Amino acid sequence: MATITSLTALDVRFPTSLQLDGSDAMNPDPDYSAAYVVLTTDADDGHSGHALAFTIGRGNDVQVAAVAALAPLVQGQPVPGTAAELSDFTRRLSHDSQLRWLGPEKGVMHMAVGAVVNASFDLVAKRAGQPLWQYLADLSPQDLVTLVDFRYLRDALRESEALDLLVAARPGLDARRDRLLREGYPAYTTSPGWLGYSDAKLAALATQAVAQGFTLIKLKVGADLADDLRRFETARAAVGPGIRIAADANQRWDVGDAVRWIRELARFDPFWIEEPTSPDDVLGHATIRAAVAPVKVATGEHVHNRVMFKQLLQASAIDVLQLDATRVGGVPENIAILLLAAKFGVPVCPHAGGVGLCELVQHLAMFDFLAVSGRLDDRMLEYVDHLHEHFVEPVRVRNGRYLAPLRPGFSAEMVPDSLSRYAFPDGRVWTPSADG
Amino acid sequence: MATITSLTALDVRFPTSLQLDGSDAMNPDPDYSAAYVVLTTDADDGHSGHALAFTIGRGNDVQVAAVAALAPLVQGQPVPGTAAELSDFTRRLSHDSQLRWLGPEKGVMHMAVGAVVNASFDLVAKRAGQPLWQYLADLSPQDLVTLVDFRYLRDALRESEALDLLVAARPGLDARRDRLLREGYPAYTTSPGWLGYSDAKLAALATQAVAQGFTLIKLKVGADLADDLRRFETARAAVGPGIRIAADANQRWDVGDAVRWIRELARFDPFWIEEPTSPDDVLGHATIRAAVAPVKVATGEHVHNRVMFKQLLQASAIDVLQLDATRVGGVPENIAILLLAAKFGVPVCPHAGGVGLCELVQHLAMFDFLAVSGRLDDRMLEYVDHLHEHFVEPVRVRNGRYLAPLRPGFSAEMVPDSLSRYAFPDGRVWTPSADG
Repeated sequence: MATITSLTALDVRFPTSLQLDGSDAMNPDPDYSAAYVVLTTDADDGHSGHALAFTIGRGNDVQVAAVAALAPLVQGQPVPGTAAELSDFTRRLSHDSQLRWLGPEKGVMHMAVGAVVNASFDLVAKRAGQPLWQYLADLSPQDLVTLVDFRYLRDALRESEALDLLVAARPGLDARRDRLLREGYPAYTTSPGWLGYSDAKLAALATQAVAQGFTLIKLKVGADLADDLRRFETARAAVGPGIRIAADANQRWDVGDAVRWIRELARFDPFWIEEPTSPDDVLGHATIRAAVAPVKVATGEHVHNRVMFKQLLQASAIDVLQLDATRVGGVPENIAILLLAAKFGVPVCPHAGGVGLCELVQHLAMFDFLAVSGRLDDRMLEYVDHLHEHFVEPVRVRNGRYLAPLRPGFSAEMVPDSLSRYAFPDGRVWTPSADG
Repeated sequence: MATITSLTALDVRFPTSLQLDGSDAMNPDPDYSAAYVVLTTDADDGHSGHALAFTIGRGNDVQVAAVAALAPLVQGQPVPGTAAELSDFTRRLSHDSQLRWLGPEKGVMHMAVGAVVNASFDLVAKRAGQPLWQYLADLSPQDLVTLVDFRYLRDALRESEALDLLVAARPGLDARRDRLLREGYPAYTTSPGWLGYSDAKLAALATQAVAQGFTLIKLKVGADLADDLRRFETARAAVGPGIRIAADANQRWDVGDAVRWIRELARFDPFWIEEPTSPDDVLGHATIRAAVAPVKVATGEHVHNRVMFKQLLQASAIDVLQLDATRVGGVPENIAILLLAAKFGVPVCPHAGGVGLCELVQHLAMFDFLAVSGRLDDRMLEYVDHLHEHFVEPVRVRNGRYLAPLRPGFSAEMVPDSLSRYAFPDGRVWTPSADG
C-alpha cells in the first residue's frame, strides 16, 4: 500500500500590483500569491498531489506555515483511495483538536486544511487517470455522502436527504457529460472591470468581452459613487442592453450604505451585487436582499465554511452562491456546499480569478452540473484572464465557455520554471536584479 | 516622540495535557500555549507592551508566524498615546488589505492583530501609570467611541447611540470604582468540571468551590449523555440546590442533538448551556434557545468578531455573551462587543481560563461595570485555577470574587523564567532531559 512520504509548502508570489490587475475597493494593490502544496508518495506510479491556497501577498508566509503545521498529520499515512479513506484523511486534518482551536474551521488554518485536502484529491484523480470532475461524477451517491462532514448541517440537510438528492440527479448524467465535453461550461468575465483601469480601458475590454462570447461582465464598485455610476454608464454603453453587468463591492459597505448605493446603481440594471457587506453578516445580506430586489445578491468567496453557507441559504440571504475552491476545507466541504445549494434551489456561480482559482474551481462547477444540481440555467463560472500560463494545464475558455479539462487531476499543478522564478523572496522576480 | 523599536513573538507552551486539565468534549488533550508578544520602544521610561494570543498546543507556531507578519507594520511607528492614535494603530493592522484576505477578521490572522493591539494597550496603560480597566474608564465617552471600528455595525449600533449609551453610564462611575476596589468582581469557577476528572474529584472540587465562595460552577458535557447525567447528579448532590451549575458542550452538537441533550440535562436545573453547537451558527443558537428555555444559552469564546456578536444579539440567539480577550481584534473590538451587549441588554460573562485569559479579561469586565453596562447583576467572570504563577501580577480571587488588579498595564506580562522554561521547542520543559 502506498504511503505519503512528504508534504511540502512553497511561497509563490506574482507582482500583479504593478499593473493594478485585481484592484478593487478593498484590495488596492494585490500581489496574487499561492501557498503551493505538493504531496509525494512512495508509489511506483510517480504521481504527486498538487494544490494551493490563494492569498494576495503579505501573509502568504503565514499561510505556508499553516500548511507546514499539517505535515506531521500527513507524512507516513497511507495514500487515501476509497471515499471512506478520503473522508478519514480530511477529518484527521479538520478535526485535530489543537489545530481546530485556531479557527475553528476558518481563516488561515482552514485554508491550509483545504489546500492539503485538495492536493489529496489531485493525487487520487491522477492515480485514477481522470480529471477530478470526472472522478467525482463517477463516485456513487453513497460515496459522495461518505465524503461529506454533516456535522452542524443536519438542521438543514441530513445524510438521507443528500443521498436522495444525488440519486435523483443520476438520470441524464451521461448525456450531460457529452454536452459538457461538446459545449463547455458557461463563463463570465471580470477582466474589464478592475477599479484601477481607466474608462477607456474599461470600455475597450467590455466590448472585447462581448466579442469573445461572454454574456455577463462584472465591474468592481464601492470606492466612489460618482465613479461607479460613470463606469457603469460607460460599460452599459459599450455592451448594450442585452448583456448582463454584475457589480462587485468587495465588502465595502455597511448594510444601510449598501442599500442606498445599489438603489443608485439600479438605473443601469445591474444583474447582481456581489459582497455588498461583511461576508460574516448573514442577517445583513438578508436585509439587503429584501431591500434591493430584483437586483440579486451574491456572495461566497470569503464565506469561510459550510455552516455560514447553510445560514445564508436558511435566511434567504442570497440569490447566487459563489463558492471558492481554496477558501474552505477542500473538495468534501465544497460538495457539502453544492448539496446545500441544490437543496435550497440557489444557483452556484463559483468565484475564480486570482492565481489557479479558475483551474481548480472549474472541476467543482462541472461536477455540480453532472451529478448534483444537474443544471446550467443561471449558472456561470467566473473567468479572469491572468496568470494561466504558469499552469501545466491552463484553463481553456472559448466563445465564453470553459472547455472541460482532460488531463488527470485537479489542474492546479504549476510549471517548475514558474515555481522557481516566482518563489518568494528568493526567486528571480523578487530579487534586486530581477528581470521581471 | 517615542517610537516602537521592535515587535517580538515567542512560542510558549505548557504541558497541561499530562494532567487532563482543560479536557472537554472537543479538546481531549490541550497543551495551553501562548503566542507571546512584546512591543519595545525607544522611550526613556523603559516600558514595554506585553500580550498574548492563547492557543492549545499544535499550531502555536503558526500563531507566532502571524504575529511576526505584523512586525513591518508596527516597527518604526510612533507609540500611540491618544484615542485617535490607538484607533489608527489598530486599523493599520486590521485593515491591511493583503493580510485581511487571510480572514477577513477571523482566525489566526485576526488573533495576531488582537495580540499586538492588546500589547499596545498594555504599553499605553503602563505609560499612564494605570491598570487598564482604570485607564479605559478614565477615557471620555467620545474617546471610547473613537477607539471603536463601527464598520458593519451601524445597522445595530451607530456611533451616536454608542456615545449616548456611554454618557448615560457616567453617573455613579466613581461610586462603582470604590465598590469594585472594595468588593471585587463576581467570579465563577470551571475548575471542578473538566471531562477528564473522576466523579470523586468532581465532587470534592465542587464542594471546595462552594466553600471558597463561588455561587456558580461549570461542568463540561457533551461526550456521553449517561456520563453527563451522572456527573450533573454528582455535582448537584455536592453543592445543593442553591448553587448554579452551568454546562459547557464545547460545540459538540448539531442543533437537534443539542435540544434533545439539554432537555435531558434539564432535570438537574442547569443555569446555562454554553457552546451547544458551532460558534458560527447564529440561527442554530436562536433555534436552540427558543427550544430549551428557561435554560439560558451562552457562547462567545470562539465567536470571531463583532459582526458575529452583532448577529447573535439581533437574532435573540443568546442569553449570556462570553467575550474572550484574545480571540478578537483586541481591546477596541471588545469595547464594540461590550457596547453591543449593553444596547441589547444581554449580560457579559467573559470567557477565561487557558493561560493568561483570566489576567487579561478581568480588565474588560471591570471596565464594563464602571463605564459601559454599569451593572453586576447576572454578570460573572470565569475563573480557572491554572498557570497564574507564571504572571508578574497573577489574578487574585478571594471569596468568589476577582480583586481589581492594581499594577499599571493589562496584566499579561509573564515572568522571564517561565518564558524561558516553557519556550517551545527548546525550553527546559520540552527538551529530552526535562525536569518538568
